[in-house]
Amino acid sequence: MKAGGKRDLVSIDDLSSDEIRELFRRADEFRADLRAWTHVCRGSIMATLFLEASTRTRLSFESAMLRLGGGVITAADVTTTSFSKGESLADTVRVVGGSYADIVVIRHPQDGAARVAAQYASVPVVNGGDGSHEHPTQTLCDLYTLWREKGQIEGLDVVLCGDLRYSRTIHSFAYALARFRANIITVPYPGFEMPAHVIERLARDFGVSTSIASVRDLPGFAGNDKGAAYLTSSRPHQLALFTKLSEVDVDHIDAIYMTRAQRERHHGETIEGYPRIDREMLKSERMRDVRLMHPLPRVDEIDYELDDDPRAIYFRQAAFGVPMRMALMAFLLGAIELDARPPEHVSSEPGLRFPVGGPRCRNDRCVTNGEGRSYLPLDFRLVAEEPPRVGCAYCSAEIETRFVGSATSHCFHAWNAPPVRRIRPENRVYFESAEQARAAGFQEDAELAGS
Amino acid sequence: MKAGGKRDLVSIDDLSSDEIRELFRRADEFRADLRAWTHVCRGSIMATLFLEASTRTRLSFESAMLRLGGGVITAADVTTTSFSKGESLADTVRVVGGSYADIVVIRHPQDGAARVAAQYASVPVVNGGDGSHEHPTQTLCDLYTLWREKGQIEGLDVVLCGDLRYSRTIHSFAYALARFRANIITVPYPGFEMPAHVIERLARDFGVSTSIASVRDLPGFAGNDKGAAYLTSSRPHQLALFTKLSEVDVDHIDAIYMTRAQRERHHGETIEGYPRIDREMLKSERMRDVRLMHPLPRVDEIDYELDDDPRAIYFRQAAFGVPMRMALMAFLLGAIELDARPPEHVSSEPGLRFPVGGPRCRNDRCVTNGEGRSYLPLDFRLVAEEPPRVGCAYCSAEIETRFVGSATSHCFHAWNAPPVRRIRPENRVYFESAEQARAAGFQEDAELAGS
Amino acid sequence: MKAGGKRDLVSIDDLSSDEIRELFRRADEFRADLRAWTHVCRGSIMATLFLEASTRTRLSFESAMLRLGGGVITAADVTTTSFSKGESLADTVRVVGGSYADIVVIRHPQDGAARVAAQYASVPVVNGGDGSHEHPTQTLCDLYTLWREKGQIEGLDVVLCGDLRYSRTIHSFAYALARFRANIITVPYPGFEMPAHVIERLARDFGVSTSIASVRDLPGFAGNDKGAAYLTSSRPHQLALFTKLSEVDVDHIDAIYMTRAQRERHHGETIEGYPRIDREMLKSERMRDVRLMHPLPRVDEIDYELDDDPRAIYFRQAAFGVPMRMALMAFLLGAIELDARPPEHVSSEPGLRFPVGGPRCRNDRCVTNGEGRSYLPLDFRLVAEEPPRVGCAYCSAEIETRFVGSATSHCFHAWNAPPVRRIRPENRVYFESAEQARAAGFQEDAELAGS
Repeated sequence: MKAGGKRDLVSIDDLSSDEIRELFRRADEFRADLRAWTHVCRGSIMATLFLEASTRTRLSFESAMLRLGGGVITAADVTTTSFSKGESLADTVRVVGGSYADIVVIRHPQDGAARVAAQYASVPVVNGGDGSHEHPTQTLCDLYTLWREKGQIEGLDVVLCGDLRYSRTIHSFAYALARFRANIITVPYPGFEMPAHVIERLARDFGVSTSIASVRDLPGFAGNDKGAAYLTSSRPHQLALFTKLSEVDVDHIDAIYMTRAQRERHHGETIEGYPRIDREMLKSERMRDVRLMHPLPRVDEIDYELDDDPRAIYFRQAAFGVPMRMALMAFLLGAIELDARPPEHVSSEPGLRFPVGGPRCRNDRCVTNGEGRSYLPLDFRLVAEEPPRVGCAYCSAEIETRFVGSATSHCFHAWNAPPVRRIRPENRVYFESAEQARAAGFQEDAELAGS
Repeated sequence: MKAGGKRDLVSIDDLSSDEIRELFRRADEFRADLRAWTHVCRGSIMATLFLEASTRTRLSFESAMLRLGGGVITAADVTTTSFSKGESLADTVRVVGGSYADIVVIRHPQDGAARVAAQYASVPVVNGGDGSHEHPTQTLCDLYTLWREKGQIEGLDVVLCGDLRYSRTIHSFAYALARFRANIITVPYPGFEMPAHVIERLARDFGVSTSIASVRDLPGFAGNDKGAAYLTSSRPHQLALFTKLSEVDVDHIDAIYMTRAQRERHHGETIEGYPRIDREMLKSERMRDVRLMHPLPRVDEIDYELDDDPRAIYFRQAAFGVPMRMALMAFLLGAIELDARPPEHVSSEPGLRFPVGGPRCRNDRCVTNGEGRSYLPLDFRLVAEEPPRVGCAYCSAEIETRFVGSATSHCFHAWNAPPVRRIRPENRVYFESAEQARAAGFQEDAELAGS
Repeated sequence: MKAGGKRDLVSIDDLSSDEIRELFRRADEFRADLRAWTHVCRGSIMATLFLEASTRTRLSFESAMLRLGGGVITAADVTTTSFSKGESLADTVRVVGGSYADIVVIRHPQDGAARVAAQYASVPVVNGGDGSHEHPTQTLCDLYTLWREKGQIEGLDVVLCGDLRYSRTIHSFAYALARFRANIITVPYPGFEMPAHVIERLARDFGVSTSIASVRDLPGFAGNDKGAAYLTSSRPHQLALFTKLSEVDVDHIDAIYMTRAQRERHHGETIEGYPRIDREMLKSERMRDVRLMHPLPRVDEIDYELDDDPRAIYFRQAAFGVPMRMALMAFLLGAIELDARPPEHVSSEPGLRFPVGGPRCRNDRCVTNGEGRSYLPLDFRLVAEEPPRVGCAYCSAEIETRFVGSATSHCFHAWNAPPVRRIRPENRVYFESAEQARAAGFQEDAELAGS
């Protein structure tokens, strides 16, 4: 399904760290004079397929493409049904990516939908936000902002503040910070702590370890709050010495990333006393070089009086989105080339293809349980071994499995039974229960023996 | 009202067959490198006025215009009322075609609306679908696809399959196939046969005669189905010898044009057992060179497993829409010239102007009964003589008339009375009843004599 | 907040009369060949933020920008909430005007919203209509049409006809006519007379005096109608001799500006017998050189049969909107320069900043009582002195004040008390009541004396 050399941005992991750094430098060139680049992508067309409203993100992409001299066709604020009269997303992107557009930006309410688009479109696909899964260009712009403001990302102390539970932006940014070896201080609004699965993934994928953080001078919503945590990479780098400490005293903050309460994803939680940053809070010495970031829209989390403070960079952060997206689009369209190597794996590669009857993704909002239910193959990746856990290749939601079968012999075993080791990894099929394995046409070893 | 040399595409009949063939060759040139033509229409602006949702068609037009280097302004998914605050369509297109745009593409829920736009706009108008009347660029793209895939259209055996009753696309494609002398095999879902008025027009306008078709190897929904018919031109061409046969044995199929059930136009009909094409069905020898077409969106009529079969060309068909529309737009904007002669008549010419009180179009969804009721002249064309039938010049719906009057003497007669022959054709006025004639201020000969 | 040299068009007063005349000449150049200017603003991007539906205005702006070679990003028909997830207008324009766009056109349902946009955006802002406040580009286009058709505006006799009460367009056009010293004859539909506050402002700002007009030959809706008035500038110009007359006999009409009933702003008023212009009405000698204008959409106020009359220029008027807007946009973007001097004051300048507790704008639909309530400063201008009246700097609604305080001493007095004269004008603070002054922390002189 995937065309030869095309590159997509479904996940931030579809770019190598070196590519990201190189794109930052390209973005800097574009930023220097935004009106000077209309020759770069002349003749190319971007389609913005926004099956969920997000005017701001859409306008940022469209501005980037126009500034590169390309054309834009837009299907915005359309619902799945009105757009497609029952058509699958796979068909839609094959049509739009067929001759209408040379690159497709998709926003979709279902988790994992961007991967579907990338698999079926013959042109590059950019994820403009798929459900509560990923929004990689937001993360790219946030990283670029931090890099531009501080000259580097490694070793920075970054506070993530507010609704850490429901904010997709915060989760993605946390992974990216860990990948670039910044330290994270979580300062959640009580009840909206960073979810365990995010902490686990930070530990598993990036070797991040957690300490209790003591953050003075964030009065009113931090201080001795038991929710505050210090997350730092255990790989050797300048702050590794802190990782053994049970409590980290944060005496310097490089950036605060504030986020609004994601009310549209709440279930009746109160947000009374939600943190709010004002001038007073930035008076402390350890805030002297802080950069105050916010993905916007802000509701009431940052006092208007801070807007003129040079440390308040949220509007600059939004402005950086255009040159950053210009660099990305120009790269994906082949208008600029990077010296850096691509990542070894990209998210649209097929993973473990499970048989019908085998495990399905349990995330209700996953595209495999949504509009792709009738045509998408079941596709997982192995994320942990003992016991085996598989993650949906579309939405990343994980399932713990207990049984392992062989795709060649069609027999299965408990995951820790010795015969499992004799099944080649590429032939292993994972099941949550013996019933599920049997439903998929596999037989237990004992049954085989007895037959 | 109509500006001097402008050309519109209200109906497929607004292009001569030679022009169509020449546009195919132009489309081929554009298709060879879609990104190479931004100089062709630079400075021109297309307005897409979509007073009915059709994202796919709109994006195809907009992509075509951008690829030609033009600009696009869009009013999409607007309802008649919200767009116009009570303004007539005539006023809207005079404004938009005044200086806003150099070409207007209109989609409108009322039959015949595109002709209104063409009459009142001073710039070229393209019909992007007017009610259930016409959608000529879809037909043009379908023909172009067939021509590209098979090298010609004349003499091809084309199966039309599925909902032949409600699909505007199927009706228009059938007329176009007949015009280019392909043979048509109708394979309807029972209860959704090709309507009698379409068969009649095929016979009347294109000399098509009907035989019973025997189509084996379309198991499950064709076979001995009494609905299957073979429609072939009676004009001399390579397949004319078949026309005497009472049953045509179809032993070779060049193309199958599949269509979804047009549920939005149904009145509660069941579609259980609606035909569905799968790999099994294409295994027969007579399907070896078939091309499987579909106007998209597909719902469930074609199995996903066929998508990779080289004979399944529905995505290519959609992709061909952009270069075909590029050729059309460039032609209408005067950016390319054709050697071929235009047709003798175009659909926006005034027809028979009937007096107030005379026959009105009886199609409820016709624009003359809709938003144009207060300002459009009653405008018809004579489509048959004995007895006389007139067709609405806007929506093509036909009325049988029984009386003929003279616009000069204001007397009227039964249609087959001898005095009718003495009325010059251009002075004839047609009425459905004597009452109607009197209401329009005409007197019966007898009355005249008696007075 | 305001960037150095940027120019906005919040109100027609943001352009000097000489600038307007120069823009007319520029518009003429653009109009000569609309397709020849794609080099003028290449690389620039316009954002159309339409938080209220107005397809026609939006398309006119977008066409103008595309014809200048610029790009367009659009957020149309979005509601405040869906666009912003609770974001303030100030934040929205800072983001969109940050790097997304080089110029912002805004339409907003709240009076005065365009001034908010101009104050917070770092790029030029054009008011595309803010509530019932202003729509300056409509006025500019109307003036340009009159100037083109008549060669000048000074001294013309212009009839304003129809719903003079609720039409924002009529009010703005009246001010502009007075500014350019045309004479106005009001011919309202009874019950829809020109509001007193408009007449008052015409007198105050432009020295216009009012006579009774006798307009024969506008049968059926004018004649001896007591609502007809003749408004003429009292400044010396060619028609000044009329101003002493108690009744002006209008024997020559240069233009009739017709307007539809603004039903969306009515409160159940009947519009039976609303004036309607037809061919008969234009037969009189004094109508020989009339120009019939209408801002469109027309509903039923002008008979369709007039559309082909050369004096009916409403479609040309709409067409002139594009070159006029091209001239404006090119000027605001710095692509063309004007020799004329700018006005001394522009509407986005800060006015009298009143303390919390002091007078608030009493216009319910004013942006300071709407989405800007939480963050906009209270900002007024002194519009009259005895007694003092202040006008909201955002929406222009006026308040009569009775007390004047000193911002330095914090004591206040009745407006006509002698001590007021000793307060420097820039330190004066105005209050509607003594209670209000006290609520704002001011003390009455007597209280001071008694304390």
